[in-house]
Amino acid sequence: MKLGLCAQALYHLPFPEALATARRLGFEAIELPVDARNPFINLDEALGGGWRSIRQTIRDAGLQISALSNHQEGQLLLGPHGSDTDGIHPGGAEEKIRYATRRLEQTAALAERLEVAVVCGFTGCEDYSRWFPWPQEDAYDRMGSVFRERMLPVLDAFSRHGVRFAHECHPKQFAYNLETAQLALELVDQHPAFGFNYDPANLLLAGMNPVVFVAELGDRILHVHAKDGELVEHQVDRSGLLAHGSWDRRDRGFRFRLPGWGDLNWRQQISELRLAGYDGVLAIEHEDPVIGRVEGLQKALEYLSPLVLREPREQRWW
Amino acid sequence: MKLGLCAQALYHLPFPEALATARRLGFEAIELPVDARNPFINLDEALGGGWRSIRQTIRDAGLQISALSNHQEGQLLLGPHGSDTDGIHPGGAEEKIRYATRRLEQTAALAERLEVAVVCGFTGCEDYSRWFPWPQEDAYDRMGSVFRERMLPVLDAFSRHGVRFAHECHPKQFAYNLETAQLALELVDQHPAFGFNYDPANLLLAGMNPVVFVAELGDRILHVHAKDGELVEHQVDRSGLLAHGSWDRRDRGFRFRLPGWGDLNWRQQISELRLAGYDGVLAIEHEDPVIGRVEGLQKALEYLSPLVLREPREQRWW
Amino acid sequence: MKLGLCAQALYHLPFPEALATARRLGFEAIELPVDARNPFINLDEALGGGWRSIRQTIRDAGLQISALSNHQEGQLLLGPHGSDTDGIHPGGAEEKIRYATRRLEQTAALAERLEVAVVCGFTGCEDYSRWFPWPQEDAYDRMGSVFRERMLPVLDAFSRHGVRFAHECHPKQFAYNLETAQLALELVDQHPAFGFNYDPANLLLAGMNPVVFVAELGDRILHVHAKDGELVEHQVDRSGLLAHGSWDRRDRGFRFRLPGWGDLNWRQQISELRLAGYDGVLAIEHEDPVIGRVEGLQKALEYLSPLVLREPREQRWW
Amino acid sequence: MKLGLCAQALYHLPFPEALATARRLGFEAIELPVDARNPFINLDEALGGGWRSIRQTIRDAGLQISALSNHQEGQLLLGPHGSDTDGIHPGGAEEKIRYATRRLEQTAALAERLEVAVVCGFTGCEDYSRWFPWPQEDAYDRMGSVFRERMLPVLDAFSRHGVRFAHECHPKQFAYNLETAQLALELVDQHPAFGFNYDPANLLLAGMNPVVFVAELGDRILHVHAKDGELVEHQVDRSGLLAHGSWDRRDRGFRFRLPGWGDLNWRQQISELRLAGYDGVLAIEHEDPVIGRVEGLQKALEYLSPLVLREPREQRWW
Amino acid sequence: MKLGLCAQALYHLPFPEALATARRLGFEAIELPVDARNPFINLDEALGGGWRSIRQTIRDAGLQISALSNHQEGQLLLGPHGSDTDGIHPGGAEEKIRYATRRLEQTAALAERLEVAVVCGFTGCEDYSRWFPWPQEDAYDRMGSVFRERMLPVLDAFSRHGVRFAHECHPKQFAYNLETAQLALELVDQHPAFGFNYDPANLLLAGMNPVVFVAELGDRILHVHAKDGELVEHQVDRSGLLAHGSWDRRDRGFRFRLPGWGDLNWRQQISELRLAGYDGVLAIEHEDPVIGRVEGLQKALEYLSPLVLREPREQRWW
Amino acid sequence: MKLGLCAQALYHLPFPEALATARRLGFEAIELPVDARNPFINLDEALGGGWRSIRQTIRDAGLQISALSNHQEGQLLLGPHGSDTDGIHPGGAEEKIRYATRRLEQTAALAERLEVAVVCGFTGCEDYSRWFPWPQEDAYDRMGSVFRERMLPVLDAFSRHGVRFAHECHPKQFAYNLETAQLALELVDQHPAFGFNYDPANLLLAGMNPVVFVAELGDRILHVHAKDGELVEHQVDRSGLLAHGSWDRRDRGFRFRLPGWGDLNWRQQISELRLAGYDGVLAIEHEDPVIGRVEGLQKALEYLSPLVLREPREQRWW
Repeated sequence: MKLGLCAQALYHLPFPEALATARRLGFEAIELPVDARNPFINLDEALGGGWRSIRQTIRDAGLQISALSNHQEGQLLLGPHGSDTDGIHPGGAEEKIRYATRRLEQTAALAERLEVAVVCGFTGCEDYSRWFPWPQEDAYDRMGSVFRERMLPVLDAFSRHGVRFAHECHPKQFAYNLETAQLALELVDQHPAFGFNYDPANLLLAGMNPVVFVAELGDRILHVHAKDGELVEHQVDRSGLLAHGSWDRRDRGFRFRLPGWGDLNWRQQISELRLAGYDGVLAIEHEDPVIGRVEGLQKALEYLSPLVLREPREQRWW
Repeated sequence: MKLGLCAQALYHLPFPEALATARRLGFEAIELPVDARNPFINLDEALGGGWRSIRQTIRDAGLQISALSNHQEGQLLLGPHGSDTDGIHPGGAEEKIRYATRRLEQTAALAERLEVAVVCGFTGCEDYSRWFPWPQEDAYDRMGSVFRERMLPVLDAFSRHGVRFAHECHPKQFAYNLETAQLALELVDQHPAFGFNYDPANLLLAGMNPVVFVAELGDRILHVHAKDGELVEHQVDRSGLLAHGSWDRRDRGFRFRLPGWGDLNWRQQISELRLAGYDGVLAIEHEDPVIGRVEGLQKALEYLSPLVLREPREQRWW
Repeated sequence: MKLGLCAQALYHLPFPEALATARRLGFEAIELPVDARNPFINLDEALGGGWRSIRQTIRDAGLQISALSNHQEGQLLLGPHGSDTDGIHPGGAEEKIRYATRRLEQTAALAERLEVAVVCGFTGCEDYSRWFPWPQEDAYDRMGSVFRERMLPVLDAFSRHGVRFAHECHPKQFAYNLETAQLALELVDQHPAFGFNYDPANLLLAGMNPVVFVAELGDRILHVHAKDGELVEHQVDRSGLLAHGSWDRRDRGFRFRLPGWGDLNWRQQISELRLAGYDGVLAIEHEDPVIGRVEGLQKALEYLSPLVLREPREQRWW
Repeated sequence: MKLGLCAQALYHLPFPEALATARRLGFEAIELPVDARNPFINLDEALGGGWRSIRQTIRDAGLQISALSNHQEGQLLLGPHGSDTDGIHPGGAEEKIRYATRRLEQTAALAERLEVAVVCGFTGCEDYSRWFPWPQEDAYDRMGSVFRERMLPVLDAFSRHGVRFAHECHPKQFAYNLETAQLALELVDQHPAFGFNYDPANLLLAGMNPVVFVAELGDRILHVHAKDGELVEHQVDRSGLLAHGSWDRRDRGFRFRLPGWGDLNWRQQISELRLAGYDGVLAIEHEDPVIGRVEGLQKALEYLSPLVLREPREQRWW
Repeated sequence: MKLGLCAQALYHLPFPEALATARRLGFEAIELPVDARNPFINLDEALGGGWRSIRQTIRDAGLQISALSNHQEGQLLLGPHGSDTDGIHPGGAEEKIRYATRRLEQTAALAERLEVAVVCGFTGCEDYSRWFPWPQEDAYDRMGSVFRERMLPVLDAFSRHGVRFAHECHPKQFAYNLETAQLALELVDQHPAFGFNYDPANLLLAGMNPVVFVAELGDRILHVHAKDGELVEHQVDRSGLLAHGSWDRRDRGFRFRLPGWGDLNWRQQISELRLAGYDGVLAIEHEDPVIGRVEGLQKALEYLSPLVLREPREQRWW
Repeated sequence: MKLGLCAQALYHLPFPEALATARRLGFEAIELPVDARNPFINLDEALGGGWRSIRQTIRDAGLQISALSNHQEGQLLLGPHGSDTDGIHPGGAEEKIRYATRRLEQTAALAERLEVAVVCGFTGCEDYSRWFPWPQEDAYDRMGSVFRERMLPVLDAFSRHGVRFAHECHPKQFAYNLETAQLALELVDQHPAFGFNYDPANLLLAGMNPVVFVAELGDRILHVHAKDGELVEHQVDRSGLLAHGSWDRRDRGFRFRLPGWGDLNWRQQISELRLAGYDGVLAIEHEDPVIGRVEGLQKALEYLSPLVLREPREQRWW
């Protein structure tokens, strides 16, 4: 295993400086978003040849790309397709679906050029609130056929590029917890290009024990987000797990945190990933509303460094 | 306090028999739904004069009506207005809103006739999944003005009938937990006709401690649902709190239960309600997928009977 | 074991009516306070011959006296002797000590007349806040010699009357938890007339596990108060265990409760008392600020009745 | 479901009186041991024709037999075969195995005569301490072939009698927890005559969550022991879960208890059994060292009666 | 935030050596006691001109003074005024009050000279055991007027010196938990010179959750003690939270510990302080009876260093 | 205290290289097994003079020997004496007992030569499964006389060599938890040569709180294994504490771990050892199936280094 980061926390810097900062802090890898709102990479230009200089810039910085990502545009594949997602791409449902499909395929194409094996992303969900089985008890399951129909072409395109799609379970995604991840896998006929970007903080928010995801779906984990979550002990009684509104209000019942600052036991996380055979990058995703950008990355890196298992397991010797 | 029940568990019986069964089991009060899908009361007919015989039938059964309720049609006030709610009333958004507004007012009118002080109900929510603040951080709060705009006329109508509306916090409602209940109250300018039907199981599902709702909003609690919830200890690790799909699958992470069969401490619930001055009905709502209708009502009644506090607090004597 | 009650909750009734109420509710025994502020018994008159009619009144009511008690006046033995205790008996320290000594002895004398084996009570403490070892680390222990000096004569007097003194560990007493109870026992040379009135709620408030008191000092438990305590889960974070002020404020971190309404596991309590060989009365002490007098006694009795073990243990048969 | 009892707690009474006592207490069924040390039934005589009068005696008492049982002699099937089991039947290993095989078959034969569908029992284990994988890591698994070899003939005999063998997972049995129960089932090729007598207290002692046994092996549960276990909270820190020595010493870390007096949540147990489709008898097994025989049976019965689910589940009605 | 220490743990060294040791270990700031029993600073001499050399000595050592403190003499303001406090200053109550008032004002004067903005301290309490509302339910609240009367002149004096008084909630202080801190603030009319020295270990001992103090009174936190507390898990059942006697006995139920060695979650503490806008010094107070002076300071510093947040929060970037 | 290791994790290296590796990683001491299956030391040769070169090799490596150990052959003293232990030494029970006795004495002799004060080891147990008191309630206690009879000569021999035997409580040993350790000590008449090698992970597996062992038997702790244990939170519900079979299967309910990676609080462990006066070596025993040999040793050393207390306690200074 190695330690990487998600690029968003360094969006305020020019690309080369962002990379240099990551390297200076001690990271070995980076996850690069390619959606239209990211400041570093223009997907169209990159595919038009710009990929060569991107690759060189990364190499010069002494980093590797652990994954490309495209959460924002992937969301448009299944929606919601109303005004909430107009900021990602305006238009009607069909236009948004078409756009998402094209952008995901472009992302795969760029990954192939950059020799990156994995693209992390979202797929969206027409109406995520249907997890609550009322007024229609089967409303959630009925969305399955649409998931299958829209995902299969995307996954086939990924296969053609030799790249795999790592879906990130998360609220507002069709697959938001272990059970729906297993359902999704089944709906795409266990497609070889389909797997998961394991983000344990998102699973905490679904009220489950993230490590069970590793125990059951470990062989489909293609990438890992080192992100933590905090059930804010002294606020959750009144604010709840499903707290609404701004991430940085003080009285929130739940917030995302940097690894080590939340409820997850990272030795347990890393042990279970090791037992599942995962040997890739743990990409620190910094969405912690309490700690600044660079200080946060640094603290999380210092916290995780002594925990990362770099050597393989061995035969029992005792 | 007294023990009542919600009528739904007895929908399989003719109305008089349902009432007789409730009485025979030992209940003292009943909450009567008046939505178009209930088998007991036709709202239009009742308002056209049928209310007299309803009142008599209830009296003959030796019961009181703790509240009328109209969750289903109330949901249409704010939506969602897509196909998921067509089963309640078909039509476009405007038609559904108009229908909901009218039906809620009719419910208040009937309550007045039947000398029932409270109507329990839902108000709906355009997009409940906006509690998660992405892609728009303020998406939830922005729905507030619509809530205000649609609720105020309804509440004014309720006031004219001398009846109060007891909103039930619940997933898929704009007000689904303590914080949003407080927000809702503020949005309607602390309207005197607005209050809450306290259903602690729904609040468990929001990941909060229900009793805090009583501690903070106790003076706005107009009615109480005696419903319990179970975080299924040996399933929740993999299924999560936000379990999707059918209520009766065995491996669900959460299910509603009868009082005593879930995670709530009912002595604590009743103590806090007593401290808040609540002295109304605890209406057992039976949505427990493990236990049958009549056996369930009976078991819940036997469980709660020795816990209900019927006398007022006294001055300290020690 | 049998179920009894402490008389205070019925002080609002005339003595015979109080006894009749206790009997009607189902109690078999009563603990009778004899301090000067109790409305039922005048200690001087009783010793002057009134004891015969007291005994007869109790017998007529079909009750037994599980213990006499004198907490209030016992407190004056060690203090505090300032204005806080003037309501019990005015005067300087010496006068208060003399009064306490005399009244405790009188209580023993009355117990002898009434054929009651046990007197429950307090002994006071000069400065209970000395449990915190600052500014003098040994301040608490140094009070030991005074405890010994004042208690030994009292205990000798008890022995002469064939009665035992059951000290109730409680805040503001020299012996307020297991460790200080053991210290007290040692200070009086394991005096045969010294033992304890086990009140588990008081021990909860000392932050210990009451049942350990039974496990270690079970053979000195002479009487039991069936009183519960509630660490008010949703208030204790901000109010703390050591909450000050009025018992009935809603936001208190801790309050005494009736058995079954607090944190104690009464099956565990009763099991451990049975293992310790205790076979006396469990006297329900009602200081629950949530529930009224008679309703509270009734609820506690109904709760404990099915738990009380009336038969002795048997040889292993399996 | 119905409530029954295991006969051992009434061994001190003559058979008819024991049955009458059970009936008077309110039990509907009884589990009858038939090993040579039981005082009620002589297996050889019963098979020689005595079964008719046994059946009549049971019927006269108004009871049904929920199961025969033969734990003691079943233990000899796999051992241990040293002096520890000489009290059950003396002799060398072969003699003990032969005896166990014969007695189990006789038990099945008697069950057939008495129209009892289930025989509960043990099967023994050559060396149960091999669960700890040292000095040989595979020592436990290697015992599997012996289990298969000795069990298959017994199970075939059971099938011939139309009776099923309900193995009770328990320390000193080859199958002592869920994993070994699943292993056992596999070793006997899912034999139709093999199932389990679910005793949740034994599974507590294996350190697992008993209800998971029901969730995974519910369709093989043929009979249920209503027995509870208590991790003695204030002793377990020093005595441990694996406490040795006499059941009735006060400082034991773990002891068996009657239902309601231990750590199990019986509403959860009964709910999960209902979800698994179990509709048989819950036989109270009284091995509680704190409470006497008859008082214990009575208390457990009173505790469980309001919890037993007697009606089937119904279709969702809400 | 920065890391400092309280000087007491280095009292065994000459002043300059103590400072040099602090600096060598890596501390950036120091809290200096000025009571008459401290070995470093003579308050009268310092005010007579000695302050210049003190200031220079501190500067030379490369440290800053985070606060002056005067807990011991502050205690005399409200008492207790008996023999327990004679070691601090002998005399009757009036003499002690006069002395405390004068010494606190002198401490403020010295702080002004040394350009230190905060003085930490105690204020005492006439009878702290009055938190238990017996024999007088309002005994605690009645002490409020005395608190107000004695504190207001002190606070006014502080204001004249441009210094603020940081009261440390602690047993034996009138303000010992969140509720009494809020009461105290109210009693002094929200005096601008009044605030708190947040010592979370003291609040643990009050049985509350310290972090709630930060959430509610964060804007009045003027200084922080980095001190931890340990509810000694394997002793507390029998010794209790309110353990009496010597700090270093092994079987104590509670003891103060160094940060990281107790029950507090320091990432949570620091996060909440950051959210409250606190950006001052965390002064390690070493009262850990398990670990030696210098080794203890070192271990605590090493533990906290990677947790301290030195940068401000930033706008949401994700 | 110092940090050492148990040599087994380096058995794959030649002896000098193993020592050099240990030293390079930062260890100060080593525990050396001398059973016949260890690759480093031949006990007969060592006693024949080889001890000089062993001593020199260790010294050259800059290490000290914290203890010799002989767990494997010690096991044969009490058994089991069947085929399970043939791999240690073949033969009948008498031969095995003779061998164990001789080898333990030889180990003591070598310890004397190498100036090592402690030999860690096992003593075995005829039938460890007798902890469960069935079919014979006193089966465990009855093994006591054999323990005494076989141990006393061994301990006398140890005394003659000036060495002490540190028994390691562990499953399959007569003394496997605190209670049996106390029993063992009593059976050998508190023999001065008898003490314990404290391995808290083994005690976790017995279901007790290891730190209580230190609190009660701290003065007999001669050596410490720094080994951790993990109740695998997401597996233990179904696998149990007493999981059978291979250490490295993923779904085990319990596994041994390196310090920091399991359930133990090492600050608490070290504090209690310090309070008990232990000032020897903490020898990291690596039996963690998740982490490789050298990486594991390194991680555990890095974890424990900042926690080890090297200085003595001091008099209270505050």
